[in-house]
Amino acid sequence: VPRDSHDALAPYLDRFVDSDGMLAYLDGNSLGRPLKATAPRLAAFVEQSWGGRLIRGWDEDWMGLGERVGDRIGASCLGAAAGQTVVGDSTSVLLYKLIHAALRLRPDRRVIVAARDDFPTDRYVVAGIAEERGLELRWVESAAHVDEIAHDVALVLLSAVAYRSGYLADVPALTRLAHDSGALVLWDLCHSVGVVPTELDAWGVDLAVGCTYKYLNGGPGSPAFAYVAEALLPELRQPIHGWLGTDRPFEMGRAYEPADGIRRMLSGTPPVIGMLAMHDMLDLIDEVGLAAIRQKSVALTQYAIELVDARIPDAVLATPRDAGRRGGHITIDHPAFVDAVPRLWEQGVLPDFRAPDGIRLGLSPLSTSYDEVEVGVEAIARAI
Amino acid sequence: VPRDSHDALAPYLDRFVDSDGMLAYLDGNSLGRPLKATAPRLAAFVEQSWGGRLIRGWDEDWMGLGERVGDRIGASCLGAAAGQTVVGDSTSVLLYKLIHAALRLRPDRRVIVAARDDFPTDRYVVAGIAEERGLELRWVESAAHVDEIAHDVALVLLSAVAYRSGYLADVPALTRLAHDSGALVLWDLCHSVGVVPTELDAWGVDLAVGCTYKYLNGGPGSPAFAYVAEALLPELRQPIHGWLGTDRPFEMGRAYEPADGIRRMLSGTPPVIGMLAMHDMLDLIDEVGLAAIRQKSVALTQYAIELVDARIPDAVLATPRDAGRRGGHITIDHPAFVDAVPRLWEQGVLPDFRAPDGIRLGLSPLSTSYDEVEVGVEAIARAI
Repeated sequence: VPRDSHDALAPYLDRFVDSDGMLAYLDGNSLGRPLKATAPRLAAFVEQSWGGRLIRGWDEDWMGLGERVGDRIGASCLGAAAGQTVVGDSTSVLLYKLIHAALRLRPDRRVIVAARDDFPTDRYVVAGIAEERGLELRWVESAAHVDEIAHDVALVLLSAVAYRSGYLADVPALTRLAHDSGALVLWDLCHSVGVVPTELDAWGVDLAVGCTYKYLNGGPGSPAFAYVAEALLPELRQPIHGWLGTDRPFEMGRAYEPADGIRRMLSGTPPVIGMLAMHDMLDLIDEVGLAAIRQKSVALTQYAIELVDARIPDAVLATPRDAGRRGGHITIDHPAFVDAVPRLWEQGVLPDFRAPDGIRLGLSPLSTSYDEVEVGVEAIARAI
Repeated sequence: VPRDSHDALAPYLDRFVDSDGMLAYLDGNSLGRPLKATAPRLAAFVEQSWGGRLIRGWDEDWMGLGERVGDRIGASCLGAAAGQTVVGDSTSVLLYKLIHAALRLRPDRRVIVAARDDFPTDRYVVAGIAEERGLELRWVESAAHVDEIAHDVALVLLSAVAYRSGYLADVPALTRLAHDSGALVLWDLCHSVGVVPTELDAWGVDLAVGCTYKYLNGGPGSPAFAYVAEALLPELRQPIHGWLGTDRPFEMGRAYEPADGIRRMLSGTPPVIGMLAMHDMLDLIDEVGLAAIRQKSVALTQYAIELVDARIPDAVLATPRDAGRRGGHITIDHPAFVDAVPRLWEQGVLPDFRAPDGIRLGLSPLSTSYDEVEVGVEAIARAI
């Protein structure tokens, strides 16, 4: 297959674990594949670190793991200087904390802007908070539809890459627009982290959250990360006052006093085992570089679009053709897809189905070959 | 050592991973030791389940894992029928959710009872909620000091076993006392689950939360569990409206609608890798039986008390001598302990230090030998 033979990143495909009878994995944007290094990493952790060091591991290594892995993600993927990113909890819980924290920073404003095309958990969490606090939730269709932010807005919650359409928002421009009206921004980076270069510090982003089991290959349900711009940290208060959000948890003090730094975002004990696997992908991202990853990502999605245009001409592309407005996945719609996807899965071709009639092709650049894209689109064309 | 040779549970000691240069691990109540089965379990998961099944794993296995492991913990350790226990989030986050949920169920009452000797995260989380909502927090010294509950109390939050003293509360009696006044109870089972037989259903407990990395050996930072009595589930609403708390998350519906069952306690994606290790200890608990585990636990703590009385007579026992009021650990106080503990750790004797002057000896029955208790107490006696 000529394209793979010309792909400078093709040799990295071999770093990932092989999968049972799979012809094309087109869902690396939903659950990244494990690297071959990950199983021995976890086994060694159990035997040497947990089993060998036992309770000593907290002092020696684990207590600051959420901050250290956060700093790694910040440096490798987010353009975030150290001390602003932390790993712990799920995306949903971190969204809840950050939305509450943002609202405390804008106590005189009673409006939140959010997008109807955003991932369900973002919409549900923010709607729950708005209802509980009697705030107005002002819906926009998508990040592409935001051209003004009113002066009564406390917070703008948007995704950098839309989970269904793959639309890549203009994060710096929308952040400026929000700031011009005195609003804060909270960017959901679940579908962009590790695949789209991001410069949170340079763009002046206030708050961000993201997932580690997609392009960071942390494994099913690995914990999420939160970013808080350094300037906001001293004032930031989140509502779940757990002991691990304090500076000296083992002093077991009388009252909660939030830690000075990003640790104040934490509540419970660091989910250590859940933070291990992502190290392998972060190592690989550092080896390859995010610019080269993005370059292959754009080429893969472009190739997928060309194949769809040629082989499934009556499918409707829900994703921008402009590569500058496109993340790492594409979605195509066709009424026959709802019946086709189960058959594709049986054949070992694994895209996502997205109701009502979408197939989402997630092309994680380091683990996806051009051949897989071709096999996948051909299989979809035959299945309908 | 005669005591170990007469211990019917001694053969199980060999099921646990050996530790570097350790003479006595007296902290299994803080971080349980891994079983030898755990490293291969995690490696096999990465290669076969995550790597082999990829996104298919969600449908085939993982999506309901929090409920299935919850049911296992409920059946093996809590006296809880299926459908009331779920694993996910940290203890701190689950406390936050359950306290909010309880307050919604008692909207006309504005008092929460909590204990000053409770674990910091319990005190911090409940104080944060009370402050945010303008509720009265009525402190008692400890669960031992609760002899009446006023009719203005919405919720009583207590630990079944106190983290420092090891005091085992009379859970059924205090639950009845609270109910007689129309209050709900939320029991923190972190220091009792897996070591003290518990009958949540029979005792009429409303809500409970607990940890899986102590006597359930789930590994550092493994996720916690929540219990909600079946009768309360239909009305129960927790504040973090994540997509995984709905019945059909992959429908990606317009609005949050809590799942019918215990899944409504969840918010984010199930922390799958974090839920794996505890299976090995649950298997072992089922093999041995909780009654036999409790029997050895009582004998171990009794033996430790006898040794302390004989060898460190000026230490003050902070733990009840009545075995019926004692959990799986004991705490002894002595002004010299603050300096002694670092030296003990260097020797490979690992108790916990608990400020201001306590040594806590946590004796996880399946992984702790009588010999270790003796070695540990002798080392403490020599160190002061």
